[in-house]
Amino acid sequence: MEYVSRLNRLRQSLAARKIDALLVSQPENRRYLSGYTACDHGIAETSGLLLIPRQGTPYLLTDFRFREQADNDTEHFEILLYPKGVLPLLRKLCYDLDINRLGFESHYTLHSTAEKLQELGKRLSVEVLPLSGIVERLRVIKDENELALIRRSVQLNEKVFQEVFASLDDKATEVDIALEIATRMRKAGAESESFETIVAAGAASSLPHSVPGSGKLIADGPLLIDMGLILDGYCSDMTRSFCLGRANEDYRKIHRLVRQAMLQGIDAVKAGVTCREVDQAARRVIEDAGYGKYFGHALGHGVGLAVHEEPRISPKSRRKLRSGMIITIEPGIYIPGWGGVRLENMVAVTDDGYEVLNHDTTLLDL
Amino acid sequence: MEYVSRLNRLRQSLAARKIDALLVSQPENRRYLSGYTACDHGIAETSGLLLIPRQGTPYLLTDFRFREQADNDTEHFEILLYPKGVLPLLRKLCYDLDINRLGFESHYTLHSTAEKLQELGKRLSVEVLPLSGIVERLRVIKDENELALIRRSVQLNEKVFQEVFASLDDKATEVDIALEIATRMRKAGAESESFETIVAAGAASSLPHSVPGSGKLIADGPLLIDMGLILDGYCSDMTRSFCLGRANEDYRKIHRLVRQAMLQGIDAVKAGVTCREVDQAARRVIEDAGYGKYFGHALGHGVGLAVHEEPRISPKSRRKLRSGMIITIEPGIYIPGWGGVRLENMVAVTDDGYEVLNHDTTLLDL
Repeated sequence: MEYVSRLNRLRQSLAARKIDALLVSQPENRRYLSGYTACDHGIAETSGLLLIPRQGTPYLLTDFRFREQADNDTEHFEILLYPKGVLPLLRKLCYDLDINRLGFESHYTLHSTAEKLQELGKRLSVEVLPLSGIVERLRVIKDENELALIRRSVQLNEKVFQEVFASLDDKATEVDIALEIATRMRKAGAESESFETIVAAGAASSLPHSVPGSGKLIADGPLLIDMGLILDGYCSDMTRSFCLGRANEDYRKIHRLVRQAMLQGIDAVKAGVTCREVDQAARRVIEDAGYGKYFGHALGHGVGLAVHEEPRISPKSRRKLRSGMIITIEPGIYIPGWGGVRLENMVAVTDDGYEVLNHDTTLLDL
Repeated sequence: MEYVSRLNRLRQSLAARKIDALLVSQPENRRYLSGYTACDHGIAETSGLLLIPRQGTPYLLTDFRFREQADNDTEHFEILLYPKGVLPLLRKLCYDLDINRLGFESHYTLHSTAEKLQELGKRLSVEVLPLSGIVERLRVIKDENELALIRRSVQLNEKVFQEVFASLDDKATEVDIALEIATRMRKAGAESESFETIVAAGAASSLPHSVPGSGKLIADGPLLIDMGLILDGYCSDMTRSFCLGRANEDYRKIHRLVRQAMLQGIDAVKAGVTCREVDQAARRVIEDAGYGKYFGHALGHGVGLAVHEEPRISPKSRRKLRSGMIITIEPGIYIPGWGGVRLENMVAVTDDGYEVLNHDTTLLDL
């Protein structure tokens, strides 16, 4: 049902560009349009491509290994297998479907592949056109079905966090905790992590993208956990910061400040507001307290089939929020040598405000 | 030490092509030439690029997040940070180093990125040239240091396999076993799996690329485990097939056949022999027993920094093995509805034969 509507919207966009058919290689775009769940093992090992003509049947081009999965996952697509690579099949389809202008995804096609497509185009007198962001633009606004899937993803992520939090002890290392999280996610039914879990203890928590190490936890030091999972294709993303023992007054002060910044950021969310206004609402709290220089990244980002997608909630973006966008609000204060605090919730934008998708609040009141 | 020699060999290759400098984006190539261990989160989120001029200092271009890692990992490289993307920095370097012909890796550069490079080239009157496989060609022959690292990777992989094998019980699911393997790998010091572990129970083992599911193990059914890890950058890859309970005569017969095929394949390995001769030596065993149509893939592949690299040991390849290549030998028989048996060892090619890198033999005598 939603796939028909997505294809129709894409086709309007193709018609406006006078494109006869679009080749879709980006895995999340492929899944968004078709429901096909196969993963790629890197960009050079595709599990299939969509060919979406402006009219008529859309195609999923893949090889025999994925036939069953393709059949199970998709409804409106005709599955075509390529025994000898996609180019001979594409040549036949360009001819059969009378394609004169063929688009491809410039931002998810290797240069070497694009060259082969363009050679093919020359031989067939087909114009081969690089396009960018054409499906991503549709994905920015989530439909009801997507919102429901993301709610479930967030819920499962919180459940895993709470289980792991309840079982933490000061003998675990960062790596132990990260592995425990990954294992519980998979056992709970997640397809995978949505990104490599960050578990940063002590001073390491001052690095926004710290990689888990095998150093021991410090009983009363700061701990930062940034984690997300993929459930039925949709991502979640949440950060919690806390102390394993009793937090000292410094830590409590910073934590309260970041919490206040997050709440102010969330409270600014509403359709029609610009991304930078939301960023500013949170950032102001941190700046006013004199910690502005310790908050060096953007406030948040869109989440959907990809864990990082449009819009970016950055200090510069004049883009306006629209109802149906789902974003993170994740301010942080990172003090080199001391540690860091980041708090992150996911929020759905509505016409008159927002819906906070996270319900885990125990740690937000330190 | 080895990095100097690798750079020198690359530079000979650049000189032969009259290339003034090569931009290296492919992560394993980057690590091979510089020792830089950072990972990319997909092709669109690079953790840095090498710029290797034909003479003089080589450069590692990255951003502030990776500065410390870049400094720690590399010895002969000058680290340059790009605050605003790589293009402005590249423009400056082309000018400062008087680069007239700049190569880039066509098979690991997005079309959209290549377009930007080519625009830059036009503005600077620099020829921007797509190249392919130029570093990969060097990586095919492993030096002593690499051989030692791969031996350790194989050894650790076997240790994890043996631990997991010893603790198997018939209540575990495919997913449970795969997660147990991944966790033990990481705890034992591996950077990660070298590919997504295959655990296929019962009839699922007839799919060469089966994805682990949560179905229960069948006590006396076939089980196939294909697993590998990355240790200090280098990959291992091993497959074992067995029955958890007592194997029936059918299974034992197929298993013996595959084992015989693997041993014959290994025995054909020697510098100067073509890849298809090795493939044929193993395949003949299976064909002669009447199971040829149940062995539908190539016999093996090279392994190094990447788990799949050159050479392919396929029925068609006339390429000759050379001393220092490291390859897998992995014949299989897959009978739909019944199950499959695959056995895989890694082998180093030597002048007068081979060295089998795997020592786990307990399961090969069923």
